[in-house]
Amino acid sequence: MKRTLVKETVSKIDEKVLIKGWINTVRDHGKITFIDLRDRTGVIQCVGANLEKVTPESAIEIIGKVVKRPEKLINKDIETGEVEVQIGEVKILNLSQELPFDMGKIDLDLSLPTLLDNRSLTLKNQKQAAIFKVQNEVAKAFRKASEDISCQEIFVPTISASSTEGGSEVFEIKYYDHKAFLTQSPQLYKQIAVGAFERVYLFSHAYRAEPSVTTRHLSEVVQMDCEIAFVENFEELLDTVEYVGTKMIVDAYQNSLDQMKLYQVKKPILENKVPRLTLHEAQKIIEERTDRKVVGEKDLSPEDETEICRWALEEKRSDFVTVTHFPTKKRAFYTMPDPNNPEFSLSYDLLFRGVEICSGSQRINDYQILVDAIKSRGMNPKDFEMYLQTFKFGMPPEGGFSFGLERITMKLLELKNVREASLFPRDMERVDVRFSQVEEASKK
Amino acid sequence: MKRTLVKETVSKIDEKVLIKGWINTVRDHGKITFIDLRDRTGVIQCVGANLEKVTPESAIEIIGKVVKRPEKLINKDIETGEVEVQIGEVKILNLSQELPFDMGKIDLDLSLPTLLDNRSLTLKNQKQAAIFKVQNEVAKAFRKASEDISCQEIFVPTISASSTEGGSEVFEIKYYDHKAFLTQSPQLYKQIAVGAFERVYLFSHAYRAEPSVTTRHLSEVVQMDCEIAFVENFEELLDTVEYVGTKMIVDAYQNSLDQMKLYQVKKPILENKVPRLTLHEAQKIIEERTDRKVVGEKDLSPEDETEICRWALEEKRSDFVTVTHFPTKKRAFYTMPDPNNPEFSLSYDLLFRGVEICSGSQRINDYQILVDAIKSRGMNPKDFEMYLQTFKFGMPPEGGFSFGLERITMKLLELKNVREASLFPRDMERVDVRFSQVEEASKK
Repeated sequence: MKRTLVKETVSKIDEKVLIKGWINTVRDHGKITFIDLRDRTGVIQCVGANLEKVTPESAIEIIGKVVKRPEKLINKDIETGEVEVQIGEVKILNLSQELPFDMGKIDLDLSLPTLLDNRSLTLKNQKQAAIFKVQNEVAKAFRKASEDISCQEIFVPTISASSTEGGSEVFEIKYYDHKAFLTQSPQLYKQIAVGAFERVYLFSHAYRAEPSVTTRHLSEVVQMDCEIAFVENFEELLDTVEYVGTKMIVDAYQNSLDQMKLYQVKKPILENKVPRLTLHEAQKIIEERTDRKVVGEKDLSPEDETEICRWALEEKRSDFVTVTHFPTKKRAFYTMPDPNNPEFSLSYDLLFRGVEICSGSQRINDYQILVDAIKSRGMNPKDFEMYLQTFKFGMPPEGGFSFGLERITMKLLELKNVREASLFPRDMERVDVRFSQVEEASKK
Repeated sequence: MKRTLVKETVSKIDEKVLIKGWINTVRDHGKITFIDLRDRTGVIQCVGANLEKVTPESAIEIIGKVVKRPEKLINKDIETGEVEVQIGEVKILNLSQELPFDMGKIDLDLSLPTLLDNRSLTLKNQKQAAIFKVQNEVAKAFRKASEDISCQEIFVPTISASSTEGGSEVFEIKYYDHKAFLTQSPQLYKQIAVGAFERVYLFSHAYRAEPSVTTRHLSEVVQMDCEIAFVENFEELLDTVEYVGTKMIVDAYQNSLDQMKLYQVKKPILENKVPRLTLHEAQKIIEERTDRKVVGEKDLSPEDETEICRWALEEKRSDFVTVTHFPTKKRAFYTMPDPNNPEFSLSYDLLFRGVEICSGSQRINDYQILVDAIKSRGMNPKDFEMYLQTFKFGMPPEGGFSFGLERITMKLLELKNVREASLFPRDMERVDVRFSQVEEASKK
């Protein structure tokens, strides 16, 4: 007998079906038992008499008849609320052990560390699973937007010969008889790629060995990048990043309305174009609105980001705002200085609901200027040999940007901690299991 | 003036256009110069008089008029062969240095190490670029096939707490004050995920610290996996892997016909269903065909793979063949033994044109049997804590498979070495630049 998916039952009234899934809840009323069965498409109520004892989260098969529920018993909260399955047979595929906690409200009941310690189990919770359905839609929407602008997907390695962007926050690998490092970003590879393919996008892993614990950072993240060559000017880059960023977020929202409802998240607002401000303009607005002295600071603080997004929403009816022209010294070496005022750079951040979700810039595309920029940061051009090669042989004006998949998922669902938006988050305290627990266990 | 892409010129005869790209070739006939300009959509001939000197691979803009070529000068080998651009203005965006070799036939002229040493430049070659266009189509087709079977995309980390599959061929990372490792495969994570999401697919990075150099192995590869739960039986898994594998390869072929033509590759053949053989049956066929004694061997050798694919093509008109039931001891610990004969396992490989391109199995889904399997391989269940948790709480019958992106690209284009199918291949001799060259340079 062929399996029927839960959501397909509504079109099979009075038919005999085989359904499979996990037991969401089981309610035993003496002889009569109610089982809410969950599969990837939804939940359905099943009812039977004299059933063998089953436990929540057990994997089972049910053969039964789909029937309409009486009017007064219709459950409007679920898609299958107008029907139920009269159980004929139950086959237990795998009986679950007793659960260590009630699965119903784990997002409220459990601390984040406990939630993550029990990741294999807690992912079965509907609200937890919803996060990764949304993440899936974010990834799809990014891909769609990138293909809209004619980018070709590329795949780049995570093992690199040297630190990509300078700085010491890199993880070192024993690589045969040599040292290697985990990539801080796919930056150099995507620039090499546009030197040949013109427009690329990519999903990559980026690593930061930052010895601190914040709610916004992970040691390993999934980064989504675009890079495009033969750009006409800086404005074309701004148009592009705003197109991809807003399209991705609006599409991901539209394609996961059920999940958004679960999290009571409002639709992203964008009534006109994304407002654009230079850092200096943004700082002046923040000063005017808050009396905090921020003009001249090298970057926006988290507080500033919140405030300028508040301004964008109030004054421009936009959940997005683009900030440009960060100080050249504060951005990576490959960032193009503004020819009109080289102290500031042709760089930009896209902000969404109070947080920077994207960073990018036009890049230096002249070989000698790039070599000088590397040297001026105290780095050695020899460590960038393959990368620099690209610029010897006709590199056109180009630029790009990158989004963090986990951070966007977090912001879109208004989660409090980026760890919630990573299936298996890595930080200085945890790789799957907490280090402290591993050490404790090994003492025993 | 808005840019016109090269392939769009054919619909703009007698119009003035702005085109941008790299100089493929430049031929100087005294006063008259011919420039073949290349962008991401194709190549077009441009002709002008008294031009400034330009070098091959320079990035330029041309403003000119598209005109029809005289009948006898039509070039049927390129899409724009019926037109050319009469150059009005040339603007040099970035002048290329002199090239170290002729870009025309680098696949024939250069050794593979030299090709890779100059990756930034050699990727601009049409045949090299074609490889990554095909790779892009393979990835797209895999994603499409996975979504056809209702898989949701997930993202898993590359940093892991212990070696996934046992064995010593792992790269070690200095992870803060701890040791961590690069994942040998995303296996454990995708199994955890199907325990919650039922059907998943993923692109991940897999690492093998194999201290040997072969034409089929890399230290870091992109792996494409599916994993599905609530499978009815072993046959459902075989149907699934054959669907995804053949659909991916046939679609990728169809969507990159230009590239296939460049490499003179024939269309994959599959007249009926993919033939299925147990390892034992395959070995008997090989013995009959070759007189080599192979029945009872633990696996197929590369020679055997070639031979059984030859059989499938000759006898079954198929470029694909599925081989099942490999010895349980030769497969990873999570592989389900065949209940009818536990010495052999519910495992399978999919072969394409002489090479294994996919490996998979039904998995053990019972907690205690899995713990015993881990112990019997000399591993410690404590190292698999989060993974094992999944099996305590109702893991349904499930299985999956994984493809190597680079290896499929290689096979589809009949390349000789998997390094050609990786943008930036990693092996024991190279991370971007060859280690031997780095060491030599540092002595100077």
